[in-house]
Amino acid sequence: MRSFTYDIATKILFGKDKLSEMLPEIKAHGKRVLLAYGGGSIKKMGLHGAVTALLQKEGIFFKELSGIQPNPRITSVREGIALCREHQLDFILAVGGGSVIDACKAIAAGVPYKGDAWDFMIGKAQVQEPLPLGCVLTLAATGSEMNGSSVISNDETQDKRPMGHPSLRPVFSVLDPTYTFSVNKWQTGAGATDIMSHLFELYFTPDKGAYVSDAMTEALMRTCLVYGPKALEKPDDYEARANLMWAGTMALNGMMSFGKLPGDWATHMIEHEVSAIYDLTHGAGLAILFPNWMSYVLDEENVWRFAQMARNVWSVKADDDFEAAREGIAAVRQFFTSLGMPARLADVEIDGSHLDTMARKACVYGKLGALKRLAATDVEEILKRSL
Amino acid sequence: MRSFTYDIATKILFGKDKLSEMLPEIKAHGKRVLLAYGGGSIKKMGLHGAVTALLQKEGIFFKELSGIQPNPRITSVREGIALCREHQLDFILAVGGGSVIDACKAIAAGVPYKGDAWDFMIGKAQVQEPLPLGCVLTLAATGSEMNGSSVISNDETQDKRPMGHPSLRPVFSVLDPTYTFSVNKWQTGAGATDIMSHLFELYFTPDKGAYVSDAMTEALMRTCLVYGPKALEKPDDYEARANLMWAGTMALNGMMSFGKLPGDWATHMIEHEVSAIYDLTHGAGLAILFPNWMSYVLDEENVWRFAQMARNVWSVKADDDFEAAREGIAAVRQFFTSLGMPARLADVEIDGSHLDTMARKACVYGKLGALKRLAATDVEEILKRSL
Repeated sequence: MRSFTYDIATKILFGKDKLSEMLPEIKAHGKRVLLAYGGGSIKKMGLHGAVTALLQKEGIFFKELSGIQPNPRITSVREGIALCREHQLDFILAVGGGSVIDACKAIAAGVPYKGDAWDFMIGKAQVQEPLPLGCVLTLAATGSEMNGSSVISNDETQDKRPMGHPSLRPVFSVLDPTYTFSVNKWQTGAGATDIMSHLFELYFTPDKGAYVSDAMTEALMRTCLVYGPKALEKPDDYEARANLMWAGTMALNGMMSFGKLPGDWATHMIEHEVSAIYDLTHGAGLAILFPNWMSYVLDEENVWRFAQMARNVWSVKADDDFEAAREGIAAVRQFFTSLGMPARLADVEIDGSHLDTMARKACVYGKLGALKRLAATDVEEILKRSL
Repeated sequence: MRSFTYDIATKILFGKDKLSEMLPEIKAHGKRVLLAYGGGSIKKMGLHGAVTALLQKEGIFFKELSGIQPNPRITSVREGIALCREHQLDFILAVGGGSVIDACKAIAAGVPYKGDAWDFMIGKAQVQEPLPLGCVLTLAATGSEMNGSSVISNDETQDKRPMGHPSLRPVFSVLDPTYTFSVNKWQTGAGATDIMSHLFELYFTPDKGAYVSDAMTEALMRTCLVYGPKALEKPDDYEARANLMWAGTMALNGMMSFGKLPGDWATHMIEHEVSAIYDLTHGAGLAILFPNWMSYVLDEENVWRFAQMARNVWSVKADDDFEAAREGIAAVRQFFTSLGMPARLADVEIDGSHLDTMARKACVYGKLGALKRLAATDVEEILKRSL
């Protein structure tokens, strides 16, 4: 078991009717708020009205940034930074899913930085004293509401790149499961896939002996397995939405990799290259790729881990490790299918014309992965098997 | 799933060679330190020397309070408060197990309070602006290193009473598993029993639907089951000590009851009355009482929960819920026995002469428990079955 530091100070306000509890948290950190969100869904569900009414009642000055897209663009980030500077805003309130929160993290980092915000994504700038950030979450998926990571896309360069810093961890996040009742089947399935994928990413390291983290990760995987289909079937099932939401947050707040290497993010990075070109929903891309990554990397050395997951999460009974591992991988595919996710790139109308570009870009900073190191040729092979 | 607030700001420095990382944390919160510990074990293992050398090297003023006993006494607390006042100490560093940490919490609360510190234990005083507290943990057991709770004994009144406040949560805790290598078999077994008991206490509520918390609690139970016996067998098994230590901390930092009632603490309170009179090791008392509490409260309404634990933790195969529940309870008894814990009060030379007093005192503030409410007559019956 490796050494680690636990330092997760984000306050989580979880449950129905927790929204107003954010007010003292906002006031403890700022006076002038950038209220950022995506499309019209938070207006349709009444959340935009509820948030602005609370801010107004409390006399908190705010300016709005709307139109942040899924796979959030650097252009939205730049727009937010300009707004903050123009109106001397000192707190950011992200209302939405991971895309809105990710954009807000980049805005928070960019306001005090003199250069262009894309510099953070290409390693040209370090995050220093970002604006404080609070979140009201409307989608159980990315876990961005309790960590310091962000992923931003650049249409000009067709890049999708991560950035991150502990100081970008939100100071609070409101997690009200009822805000996810109106999430449609496709986004619900993609969200559950995203959560499960994070758990895979953290689980599949070569480390032995971090039993607590492994067992907790398996517990969260079973949560997705039990409640993903329930949320699809009955969108206002509070128990299902609540457990998915909490699992999604816990999955990526750092706790699941305590005592271990920080995960195998190969599939994640490969998917980023696919969605950088095709603007695919992240979860859908992961559903296509993950079982193929699993089959590709499975070997004598790591079969114990695949077998462990198969038995502890998918209740596979096989005694032989390889047999158990393969049954487990098949169960993963079946699970994603049950969530309405695609199984092949062809299902989302992606052909083989850019595989080499995607593979090359995925490995632009070197080989990928921890369980097994993957070169561009390996990535291209995984993509081919996913066609 | 009930609403909750996650606000766990204790920084955990986990692993070998993390001790020196406490220095910036101490300096961020204070200038003059009360260094508190128990008997000579931290001197024997070299930890006292390591801590004092670090403080001296950093030029941090400190005064020592030694001799804090297991089942820490209010007399030690008063002594610590007097030392802090005399030397204007503004930070407390607890080096030891739960008893030392618990005493330090009461000291932290007591320094700014004008009356006697026992007032906190009898509900006569509220904790307000306690001194900040840091911990160096030497025993995997109580979980006190990451929560705001404390239990203090009073020899004069033969009372053992809890107190607690969020502001008593340590600002940091150093968790170095090697510091527990020298813990003897008895204390190792009692510590693992204590952890398992906390997990039972949090698990056995009537709530349905807090799946994440239940599944995580089961994960920590399995951790105790796997690593408790290993730590007994090989005291310097780093993996075993590390997993037990982290499980003990996670078990009682609040996370396992998110979405649920805050647990059923009946057995815990009954044990406090036993050890208030007999100065029994807390874990040993719990090992005796818990399976008897389980058999006593098991009924039609709660059998699902016992059966769930039996299947998910102890791998019981029985289809019938009552059969599974009973097999699970038997497995709990067997587990405690495998840790070298006593099974009956007679094993620790406690006879039936004070059962009625203990039962009455356990219920002095009303009925006990959440899964099933217990009156003094119920408590006496559980104690009788434990003779």
